[in-house]
Amino acid sequence: MSTDTLTVPQPPSEAYVRIIPLGGCGEIGRNMTLIETNDDLIAVDCGLMFPDEEMFGVDVVINDFTYVRERAHKLRAVLVTHGHEDHIGGLPYLLREFPQVPIVGTPLTIALIKAKSREHKLGTVEFVAVQPGDRVQYGAIETEFVHINHSVAGACSLAIRTPVGTIFHTGDFKFDQTPIDGKPADFAAIARIGDAGVLCMLSDSTNAERPGHTLSERIVGEAFTGIFSRAKGRIVVASFASNVPRIQQVVDHAVRFNRKVAFLGRSMQNVVHFATELGHLRIPPETSIRIEDVDSYPPEQIVVLTTGSQGEPMSGLARMSVRDHKKFRIAPGDTVVISATPIPGNEKSVYRTINNLYRIGATVIHGTDGRSHVSGHASQEELLLMLNLVRPEFFIPVHGEYRMLVQHGKLAVQTGVEPENVFVVENGDVLEFTGEYGDKIGKTYGGHVLVDGTGVGEVGEAVLRDRKALSNDGIVMVVVAIDAEEARLIGSPDIISRGVFYLPEANGVLDELKTELGAIVANISVEAMRDVNSVKEHIRSGLSKAIYSRTKRRPVVIPVVMEV
Amino acid sequence: MSTDTLTVPQPPSEAYVRIIPLGGCGEIGRNMTLIETNDDLIAVDCGLMFPDEEMFGVDVVINDFTYVRERAHKLRAVLVTHGHEDHIGGLPYLLREFPQVPIVGTPLTIALIKAKSREHKLGTVEFVAVQPGDRVQYGAIETEFVHINHSVAGACSLAIRTPVGTIFHTGDFKFDQTPIDGKPADFAAIARIGDAGVLCMLSDSTNAERPGHTLSERIVGEAFTGIFSRAKGRIVVASFASNVPRIQQVVDHAVRFNRKVAFLGRSMQNVVHFATELGHLRIPPETSIRIEDVDSYPPEQIVVLTTGSQGEPMSGLARMSVRDHKKFRIAPGDTVVISATPIPGNEKSVYRTINNLYRIGATVIHGTDGRSHVSGHASQEELLLMLNLVRPEFFIPVHGEYRMLVQHGKLAVQTGVEPENVFVVENGDVLEFTGEYGDKIGKTYGGHVLVDGTGVGEVGEAVLRDRKALSNDGIVMVVVAIDAEEARLIGSPDIISRGVFYLPEANGVLDELKTELGAIVANISVEAMRDVNSVKEHIRSGLSKAIYSRTKRRPVVIPVVMEV
Repeated sequence: MSTDTLTVPQPPSEAYVRIIPLGGCGEIGRNMTLIETNDDLIAVDCGLMFPDEEMFGVDVVINDFTYVRERAHKLRAVLVTHGHEDHIGGLPYLLREFPQVPIVGTPLTIALIKAKSREHKLGTVEFVAVQPGDRVQYGAIETEFVHINHSVAGACSLAIRTPVGTIFHTGDFKFDQTPIDGKPADFAAIARIGDAGVLCMLSDSTNAERPGHTLSERIVGEAFTGIFSRAKGRIVVASFASNVPRIQQVVDHAVRFNRKVAFLGRSMQNVVHFATELGHLRIPPETSIRIEDVDSYPPEQIVVLTTGSQGEPMSGLARMSVRDHKKFRIAPGDTVVISATPIPGNEKSVYRTINNLYRIGATVIHGTDGRSHVSGHASQEELLLMLNLVRPEFFIPVHGEYRMLVQHGKLAVQTGVEPENVFVVENGDVLEFTGEYGDKIGKTYGGHVLVDGTGVGEVGEAVLRDRKALSNDGIVMVVVAIDAEEARLIGSPDIISRGVFYLPEANGVLDELKTELGAIVANISVEAMRDVNSVKEHIRSGLSKAIYSRTKRRPVVIPVVMEV
Repeated sequence: MSTDTLTVPQPPSEAYVRIIPLGGCGEIGRNMTLIETNDDLIAVDCGLMFPDEEMFGVDVVINDFTYVRERAHKLRAVLVTHGHEDHIGGLPYLLREFPQVPIVGTPLTIALIKAKSREHKLGTVEFVAVQPGDRVQYGAIETEFVHINHSVAGACSLAIRTPVGTIFHTGDFKFDQTPIDGKPADFAAIARIGDAGVLCMLSDSTNAERPGHTLSERIVGEAFTGIFSRAKGRIVVASFASNVPRIQQVVDHAVRFNRKVAFLGRSMQNVVHFATELGHLRIPPETSIRIEDVDSYPPEQIVVLTTGSQGEPMSGLARMSVRDHKKFRIAPGDTVVISATPIPGNEKSVYRTINNLYRIGATVIHGTDGRSHVSGHASQEELLLMLNLVRPEFFIPVHGEYRMLVQHGKLAVQTGVEPENVFVVENGDVLEFTGEYGDKIGKTYGGHVLVDGTGVGEVGEAVLRDRKALSNDGIVMVVVAIDAEEARLIGSPDIISRGVFYLPEANGVLDELKTELGAIVANISVEAMRDVNSVKEHIRSGLSKAIYSRTKRRPVVIPVVMEV
C-alpha cells in the first residue's frame, strides 16, 4: 500500500518530540497518532475504518504500522481514549505484531477491547486499567487521563507530557453541561493543564462545520419522554451498543413508564454486562427481562434495545425489518426509535430499513428527524471553548475529512493560534518539535491497509481494479486448443461467461460469438499462430469488439490457449 | 423482471377509469402513471431511476411497459409534467416501442426531452407543445395543464378529466409565494378544479416528512447576495442544469456585482440556450462570456456556472476538483458554491469533491449547510394546502419512498379524506374507479427493468448475483486437459485468477494450489474421471476449500475440463 516517496530524516541530537497521525486525518475512521521522543514511542488509539464502495470485497481498513515496526524497540504503550471501533478496531492487528505492548485505558474501554478482540484469539495481552485523573509513565512520557463527555462512557482526553512540552489530545469529545451520569467534562483539569502550558493540541474535528453547541444528552431524554408517553404498543430502540448513556436513558424511561427492558443481540448484551459491572449503567433488576420472555408481557409494558441503527444487513434491526429475526418480530402498533444518525454512506441502508419497518406496520421515529438523537462530537462553540481552555502553541485538527480539518484550523486561528502553527496534516505526516522549532519534517507510510479475509495488506490496487471491472460487466473466458505443429484449432472452442449475459438470450449470443471466434482465429497468420501470446491477444481483442458491438458491455475477456 | 403473480381482471362494462402507477411509488425515480378509460390510455411522465450500489454495472433503471404493450391500441399520448430525468428519462425506451405516440408538454419540457434524447436517435417524434392553462383532448380524456412551481421552469400539474371524474396529478411541485420569475402557482385554477369536484388526486410525497413550508427560491438569492459580496476571487456555482430559476439568480447576481458569467459543459449550455429562447431566462448579452475567455478578466469579475452538484465523477465540478478539466482550473481564492443537496446515496461522492476542492485552496459553500439551496418539493404545510384546495374523494401519494407515502397519506386524512380512500400503493397496483366504487382491483408488472449497455431488460438477477460474487472475491479458473480414455490428466493444469491474489504473493499461492489440485484429481475415482461434470465438481469444491483455508476468501471457481 506504500506508494509515497518517503522522507523521514534522522532525528536531531537535542530533545525532540514527534507527532505522527497515521490515520483519521482527511477521513473518518482508523484514528491513530504516534508520539515519539528520543527514546520512547507511544500510540494514541488504533482504530479501523470501514471500506468504501470502491473497495470491492474488502472487510476493514487499518493503518500502516511501518513507522512503528522500524522503531519497535522504542514502543512502550498504546493509550486508548475510548472504546469505539474507529479507535480500538485496529488493535488486534497491532497486537499480532507487538504482542507485548501494554494497552492502557479506562475499565469500560478495556472491556470493549476485550469483547471485540475475542474473535481474534489474541493470547495474553497486558491491559492497564486507569481512572480519569490517573497518570501513567512510559519512559520519558507521562500521560494524564482527563474525563470528557462522548457517546460512550469512560472516554478521556490525554495530557501527554514529554521532555519538550505537553501534548494535549482531546480524543473524541463534546462538552455536555447536563450529562445523564451527572459528570460534565473535568474543566478544572483541562484549565490547569492549559495554564501550565501546552505545546501542541490535537482535537476532534468531526463537527467542526457545525455552528453552535451540540445538544445535551438530556434532550434525547425529553424526546424519549414524549415517545414513551405516546406509544401504545411495544417500543424498540436501536442504538450503538457502546452508547452507554443512551442505554441508561432508555432504562430510566422504562422504569418511569412501567416497562420492562430486554436487550437483543450479543454486542448489546455484552456492553450492558460490562457497563453494569463497572458502575456506568444502573438497571433495577426487576426492569430487565430476557428477550425470550417478552411475549409474556402486554405490549405496553415492553421496551427492546437492539443494535442496527446504521441499517447493517445482519444487525438486529435490519433483520426485524424483514421479519427475519428468530427471537423478536415487529408487530403493527410497535414504535421503533432509531436513536442515531446515519454515518455518510449508510443513508440508503438506513432508509431501506425504515421503509421495511413501515411496511410491517410499525411507527418509526428516526434520528434524521432530529428528535431522538444528539451527536457525541463537539460543535464549533465547544471546539472554541476547548481551544481557549488549552491555549496551545501549535494545533493539529484530527478526526475528520479534509474540509472539517480546514474549518477547525480556522477556528484555532480565531482563538489566537498563529496561522503558521496550525497544521492541516495528511496521514503519515511527521511533525517534529524541539525547544527551537515545530514543523513538518517528513512523511512516513500513512496509506490504507486493506484487510480481506485473513490477508492483511494483501489486497492491492490491481486486485481492486480487477474486481471493479468484474463487477461492472462480468467476465468471459474462451478456451481453445491449438495444434502447435500445424497451427490450427482442435475441436470447438469453449466460451464461459459470468455476469455478462441474461440466460434466456445467452445461448444465441454465445453461438454467434463462437462463429465470430472461428473467423478471428482464421485471420491469424500461421506465424502468429505459433506464438501463444499472439493468439491470446488476437482472441482477446477480437472477442471484446464482438461483444461490445452486440451488447455495449466490456467484460473482462480471458483467452486460455492450450497447446496440444 | 416480472416475478409477481399478476391479476388484472377484465374491465367492467360500465364507464371506468383505471390509475396504474408503474414507478415512483416506494422509491425515488422513474415516475410514471397510467390513466386508462374504456377506450383510451394515456401515460403521465416516463422517468428513469439511477441504479443502486447492488445493481453492478447497470446504467439506468426504467419501467416495465407490459401493461401499455398489451393495450397498445388504446395508447393516445404521454403527458409530461416537467423536464427532469426522473420524469422524462424513460421516454426514449418507450418511443422505441411506440414511435407514433405524441409527447405533450410545455416548450421547455419538450426542449429538455429533445436534448436528452439526441443520443438515442429517435427518428421523428410527434411533440405537442402546450402552455399552462391549455387543454388537450385524447379520446375521452381531456387534460388541463396548470402552472405550479418547481426547481425547473415550465412545470405543471395536470387536471385529467375522464368520463368517471377528474384526476388531479400534482407532478413535482412546491408553492413558492415569491418565485423569482414572479409567477406563483395558479391557485385560481387549482381552486376552480377542486370546486368542480376531483375524484382522485396523486401528489408529490418527496418532502412529506418535512414539517413546515419549503423556503422560497428568493432565500437562495439572499444567500447569494452574501456570498457575492464577500467573495474576492472567482465564483463557481454548481447546480442542476435544468434548474433554470437558480441559473437566473446567479445571472442576476452577476449583473448586480459586475461579474461576467460563463457556462461550462454541454448540458448547462443547452439548457441556457433553450431557456433563453423560450423566455424563461433573461441574460444581458454583455454579461455572458465564453468559458475560453474567462482568463481575460480579473478573478473578481468572473462567475462560472457548471454541473456536478452531485459529485458525479465525469461532471464539470468533479473534474475541476482534481484539476482534470481542460477548460477551467480552480485556483486558490476561488469560491465554489454547491447549490444543491446530495441525493441519498451521493453523499460520499459530493463530500469527496468538496474535500478535493478544499485541497486545491478553494472556499466551498455547500447546500448541506442550508444556505445556498432550497428544495423544489412541497413540505407538509404545502401538501396540506394542496389537499385543501383540491379536496379529492380518493388520494394516492406518489413520488416517494414508502415511509414518505405513509406520512403523506396521514396528512390527507387530516384534511378530511376518508382513511379507506387513501391508497398507499406499490408500483404496478391497478386501481379502478366507476360511478359505484374505487378500489385496488389487481396488479400488473411494476418491477425494475435494468438497462445495461444496449440491452433493455437483459440484465437479470442471476447476472447481478454473479457480478456481486465477482466483485467480492474475484474469480479463479482452472483449466485441465484429461485423457478420457485413460482417465488421467494430461500436462500441468493452468490456474488463472482475477481480483483474488495480490501479485507479489500470488505465485507462491498459485504453486501451492497447483500441488493441491494434483492431490484433488488423484483422489477422483476412475469412474468419476469419465464423467466431465463430476470432475468439474470435484475440482471446484476442492479448490474452493483450499483457497478459503489459505485466504478466507471465496472467489468464484470455474473449472474448465478439456477432453482430449
